[in-house]
Amino acid sequence: MTITIHGSPKSTCTGRVLLTLYEKEVQDFELVEIDLSKGEHKSPEFLKHQPFGQIPYVVKGELELYESRAIARSVAEWFPNQGTSLYGTTAHEKALVEQWLEVEAQNYNPPISTIVFHLVFAPMFGLTADEAVVAAQTAKLESVLDIYEKRLSETKYLAGDFFSLADLSHITYSFYLIKIAQKGAIYDSRPHVKAWIDSLFARPSTQKWLKLAGFAQ
Amino acid sequence: MTITIHGSPKSTCTGRVLLTLYEKEVQDFELVEIDLSKGEHKSPEFLKHQPFGQIPYVVKGELELYESRAIARSVAEWFPNQGTSLYGTTAHEKALVEQWLEVEAQNYNPPISTIVFHLVFAPMFGLTADEAVVAAQTAKLESVLDIYEKRLSETKYLAGDFFSLADLSHITYSFYLIKIAQKGAIYDSRPHVKAWIDSLFARPSTQKWLKLAGFAQ
Repeated sequence: MTITIHGSPKSTCTGRVLLTLYEKEVQDFELVEIDLSKGEHKSPEFLKHQPFGQIPYVVKGELELYESRAIARSVAEWFPNQGTSLYGTTAHEKALVEQWLEVEAQNYNPPISTIVFHLVFAPMFGLTADEAVVAAQTAKLESVLDIYEKRLSETKYLAGDFFSLADLSHITYSFYLIKIAQKGAIYDSRPHVKAWIDSLFARPSTQKWLKLAGFAQ
Repeated sequence: MTITIHGSPKSTCTGRVLLTLYEKEVQDFELVEIDLSKGEHKSPEFLKHQPFGQIPYVVKGELELYESRAIARSVAEWFPNQGTSLYGTTAHEKALVEQWLEVEAQNYNPPISTIVFHLVFAPMFGLTADEAVVAAQTAKLESVLDIYEKRLSETKYLAGDFFSLADLSHITYSFYLIKIAQKGAIYDSRPHVKAWIDSLFARPSTQKWLKLAGFAQ
């Protein structure tokens, strides 16, 4: 059954869904582009499907689903026997994947999404970055990265010695901060974080997303 | 295998875990109280188990796990054949539970946790509530509740006509805002939201938590 993604390939949240589909080797999907610059995500038609006016949402048969982490979790569960095992292989590992997915959503995403908004998206809309906000959120992100550095000195990936949905969920915003906003120094100064991020960016799925989004050839 | 919760019964996040254990009819657990007023959650010993200095974390055999939504999800999965089926009964329903769990985490929790911090917790620490922040976050919460009102006019609970982990995840902060901060008016003015919240507060599991936390007799 075809999965239709209503979103934008450059979007961090659409990217999270695409990365999951690539990792699970799902072939049967299509992308319907929503033009954010025209405000299509705030149109009455769009809001019927996603009342918060945010991309992406997906359609699979009779199911309409939004929130990128919920879609990613669902895709991982719908295709248990193909592609990367994104929840590990035991109940113990799955619990730790859920923990680090929440750490991403609750601790990593708030500062990094704010910084990327100010440094990358605000200028696109003719707004000026608030440097005080960027500095405060960078300090927060650094304290999170200190905890990641310790964790990643013990295990290769966040939930253990296996790549999981928790690691995947960090890729798109980290790419924007490091490669687009050119703020990679706080990663480079933490060797285990640096090695982890490099390994995430080098994945074939990440390269596939970067090509689709026009960030790589 | 005993589940040991390191937390505080009055805490909203510890409450989320306790509600899940009650709904799943798990008997074999114990609570080790962390005294926040003494800063025990920032002690070097605590930080070994929860590096972000937040309660709760749980121990189950060799597994140590934190982030309340990750613990709640895990408890729901560890006990599939007892208590309330917190993910519905089909893959379609489970996906919608994940969606509304994320809506709670990403859209509902940020404003309500900020308001409750300013109106309930700040005064406890001798801080003054920032009324401008409370007003701005109340406006945000109201726009979220408008979407909930429409959804709950179509289905009895958020993910469908069944109580789920997504509904459960709203209970503790809503209780603080409505019953402790006495700011229930924005719920009362939305009849479907009001009926939903009343049904959540009336659940035996909620009553059990309120008693343990000292909010009810």
